[in-house]
Amino acid sequence: MSSERLIYLPLGGAGEIGMNAYVYGYGAPDEERLILVDLGVAFPDMDGSPGVDLILPDITWLKERADRLEAVFITHAHEDHVGAVAHCYEALGAPIYARAFTANIARRKMEEQGHPEDAVQTASAWPETIKAGPFTVGFLPISHSVPESSGLVIDSPEGRVVHSGDFKLDPTPGVGELFDPDLWAEVAKPGVRALICDSTNVFSTHPGRSESELGPEIQKLVAGATGMVVATTFASNVARLKTLAEAGERAGRSIVLLGRAMRRMIEAAIETGVLADFPKVVSPEEAQDIPRANLMLLVTGSQGERRAASAQLARGKYMGLELAEGDLFLFSSKTIPGNERGVIRIINQLSEKGVDVVDDSSGRYHVSGHANRPDLERMQEIVKPQIVIPMHGEHRHLREHAKLSEKNGLQSVVAVNGMMIDLSGNAPTVAEYIETGRTYLDGSVQIGALDGIVRDRIRMALNGHVIVTVILDEEDEPLGEPWCDLKGLAETGTSNAPLVEVMEEDLHQFLMRAGNKTLRDDDALEEGLKRIARQTCMAEIGKKPEVTVVISRMR
Amino acid sequence: MSSERLIYLPLGGAGEIGMNAYVYGYGAPDEERLILVDLGVAFPDMDGSPGVDLILPDITWLKERADRLEAVFITHAHEDHVGAVAHCYEALGAPIYARAFTANIARRKMEEQGHPEDAVQTASAWPETIKAGPFTVGFLPISHSVPESSGLVIDSPEGRVVHSGDFKLDPTPGVGELFDPDLWAEVAKPGVRALICDSTNVFSTHPGRSESELGPEIQKLVAGATGMVVATTFASNVARLKTLAEAGERAGRSIVLLGRAMRRMIEAAIETGVLADFPKVVSPEEAQDIPRANLMLLVTGSQGERRAASAQLARGKYMGLELAEGDLFLFSSKTIPGNERGVIRIINQLSEKGVDVVDDSSGRYHVSGHANRPDLERMQEIVKPQIVIPMHGEHRHLREHAKLSEKNGLQSVVAVNGMMIDLSGNAPTVAEYIETGRTYLDGSVQIGALDGIVRDRIRMALNGHVIVTVILDEEDEPLGEPWCDLKGLAETGTSNAPLVEVMEEDLHQFLMRAGNKTLRDDDALEEGLKRIARQTCMAEIGKKPEVTVVISRMR
Repeated sequence: MSSERLIYLPLGGAGEIGMNAYVYGYGAPDEERLILVDLGVAFPDMDGSPGVDLILPDITWLKERADRLEAVFITHAHEDHVGAVAHCYEALGAPIYARAFTANIARRKMEEQGHPEDAVQTASAWPETIKAGPFTVGFLPISHSVPESSGLVIDSPEGRVVHSGDFKLDPTPGVGELFDPDLWAEVAKPGVRALICDSTNVFSTHPGRSESELGPEIQKLVAGATGMVVATTFASNVARLKTLAEAGERAGRSIVLLGRAMRRMIEAAIETGVLADFPKVVSPEEAQDIPRANLMLLVTGSQGERRAASAQLARGKYMGLELAEGDLFLFSSKTIPGNERGVIRIINQLSEKGVDVVDDSSGRYHVSGHANRPDLERMQEIVKPQIVIPMHGEHRHLREHAKLSEKNGLQSVVAVNGMMIDLSGNAPTVAEYIETGRTYLDGSVQIGALDGIVRDRIRMALNGHVIVTVILDEEDEPLGEPWCDLKGLAETGTSNAPLVEVMEEDLHQFLMRAGNKTLRDDDALEEGLKRIARQTCMAEIGKKPEVTVVISRMR
Repeated sequence: MSSERLIYLPLGGAGEIGMNAYVYGYGAPDEERLILVDLGVAFPDMDGSPGVDLILPDITWLKERADRLEAVFITHAHEDHVGAVAHCYEALGAPIYARAFTANIARRKMEEQGHPEDAVQTASAWPETIKAGPFTVGFLPISHSVPESSGLVIDSPEGRVVHSGDFKLDPTPGVGELFDPDLWAEVAKPGVRALICDSTNVFSTHPGRSESELGPEIQKLVAGATGMVVATTFASNVARLKTLAEAGERAGRSIVLLGRAMRRMIEAAIETGVLADFPKVVSPEEAQDIPRANLMLLVTGSQGERRAASAQLARGKYMGLELAEGDLFLFSSKTIPGNERGVIRIINQLSEKGVDVVDDSSGRYHVSGHANRPDLERMQEIVKPQIVIPMHGEHRHLREHAKLSEKNGLQSVVAVNGMMIDLSGNAPTVAEYIETGRTYLDGSVQIGALDGIVRDRIRMALNGHVIVTVILDEEDEPLGEPWCDLKGLAETGTSNAPLVEVMEEDLHQFLMRAGNKTLRDDDALEEGLKRIARQTCMAEIGKKPEVTVVISRMR
């Protein structure tokens, strides 16, 4: 047996849905040459990451081995797969390969961050391949909810690995390539050591439905509408946008695209030739002169994002357009768990305007982009891998997918972020545990999720913030009385006097009683002042605030 | 026509699900004698109300008219109906009426807040009634997911109003009273002017299912389990707790109740005689000596609450009990929209432990406590009201329920919080708009949702907080350099020097340049320092922080 090995190491996306980043390596232990598949982001929320702009995978491990990184391959243009390429480019430096549509999107991101667009290279589809150190990698077309999604055929001296990318088995996806079982079977013929596979929909027990099923239903809905029609879906779902726009066109409506992401995706799809015949679009300005019964708006914000077009329309006017009683608003999308509140907020605002809202609950206006449980089994039958490694899922998805694979007689392992799996032997083994985590893009800088910065923000949000200022003279005696500023705390508590005054008095008493030893020692003084401020706050308003003490000495 | 009128005024619960509070009044305009139906809470979240303990309806309007308030009636023991009784008792002072089980729960709340328990009076069921000024009110039993839920029959000189309370049409609810259509028809016989009706499930198109359907399914599931079984549901769903416990008992398992709310509800149900034959319960300590295959835990925390028993068990040991591979965890509950993240977090933690999780997605282990669309129509047929006023719903629910009522030939109106409806005339009319909103219980004090306190907390969470301290001497000249403290902000920005130092230098430069006029004027000085701190922060780390400026003058 050679001393070389083939490794798989998820740095993001395994144990969560979002920020995908999967490393493959081949070579002697700790000298493997590496490739990275996908480099995506996840989205922050108020509960865990308030104020954060984007969540990136922690790629420290890879950064420290950047000299061994041959290339980055991006399977498709969703943010959780391509969103971090520009933010991580400086740290990694490796060339980025993607097919035309995805490359177009990636280059826009590079440009925005001031990085060279030509770091992104356009790859052709299988059977063409790219050499990357010991690996040969091919982009194998597969259907998904964005154009030109691809699985990757990754060949190494230890055999062939198939990385599914995000996929569904759609014979009629509308825009983009269909799933071709014969092509995949052909690729699998030489034998596949491991299938690294999308797990998102493992709990959905019915076979997945085709994008093309939606056309007639959406046409019927739009044809029956009397007022303005507004439809929202993921901006990157170009096939859906086309289905929606065509339904509008058939019903004699002019199409308006609202939202930067949507215009950008359509633009990229047209530039790269994946979208040839999109209905004619009119601008929001032109739409002013068209009767509302002859308009159909396609808008961003299917997840209830506050700044997106859908939320703005729900609140009031947007780009001169305004919803009115009798209009129809279609969510041609599902709500991602965690986004319910935002979506429901919009639906209620629309309800207040008298707008009728139709969502995906009937199953008629949305189909998923991911393979369901029976589809995952079909994929296993076609690819016939020795090993299935579930990816792109929370722990519950990975575990269920592993159980499913084992039930079907295949080896499987639940590999979460940071678990380096050795795929060289007869069975997959855990070679090492790597420290991983999340990096936050916060404003213009990257900070670690565990740096304590965001923890401090959460604490201020939960507990409020008291600032205590004390000035001491050359003799270390208090100069005047301590001063308090409160932020995020009730003004009056149980004693019915202003909280700030009660607190200043208590702190003053403390300083009067404090010995020279305490007054001379910044740490002891700070500790004492904090304790008193917290005690007073607890007694007065029942809260233990964050306290910042500022001590100024005149010496 | 008399100059008296009958009014309905929701102060909470109409336009949201939560914090129910509905006022009825009868008398000359602005002299009506009033009753209040329900006084509940809503629960805070990190997005909109970080750090808040409970959300109460803003009852300012009622407080200012407390001398006209005859009584408070509580329909059932759910927190969104009874949760605010003790917190609002001092402001209102009126007697509180509820049936035995609900009264038991209400008294516990009064006791906790140090209020007289005898302010809560136990009411008997219809046909007994309570006189409250011009009103005569009867508690009409109806099935729901908590014992002794009741609709209210509210008679006034302007006729009979039926307030449905929360309900479902369950002929076999297990614990508590069934829905008796004949009784309701009899009550409706003299004619009902208005039905004020639960709207929660108006979008569920199938007829509601009975609690008793679950027994056999849950028994089968528990009988098939090999490890420990843990089940969670709403603590107040006593019927469900009984069904679960009985399934455990049948399978030879000892029952353990974990979580204060659950023990409290069972206790109240036994004390008030609504629960006679609950299986024998063992303590967590006794459970240590019982094999895990012979244990069934009933635990709080079906909504993923971080401190509840379910979350603690998912994270590790709780009361000496710990989950292990092969155990079964059942969510006999649905996830309320907005709580998905917390529930999914628990499911993933359980998955990491190798615990199998079963939720309500199959429909076999949970039924709703609210009337579905066909049930709402059946209720209309039985009660035959002139007017239907939808309550207990977000705007979308109220609007849909009103449309449904009008479709069935009934008058209806969407009345949201603050809309006073005059029910005296031939058709309901809006008499007045009252300012309403939310009050936060924050620690031990009540604050207004719009007081700016919580807004400041949210801003600190999103933007971080900079504290600038400046000392000026007797001549209004800066004494030393300005001092900055940062909280919730990255330590280093684009210039690669510590942000705090860059900021202090920029502020120092500003002070050096500042004229006497600025230095003498606190407001101008503060404004200038804030501006500089924000500019530096923006340039260095791309964020605009909250800034607190503390100016100390030696004069």
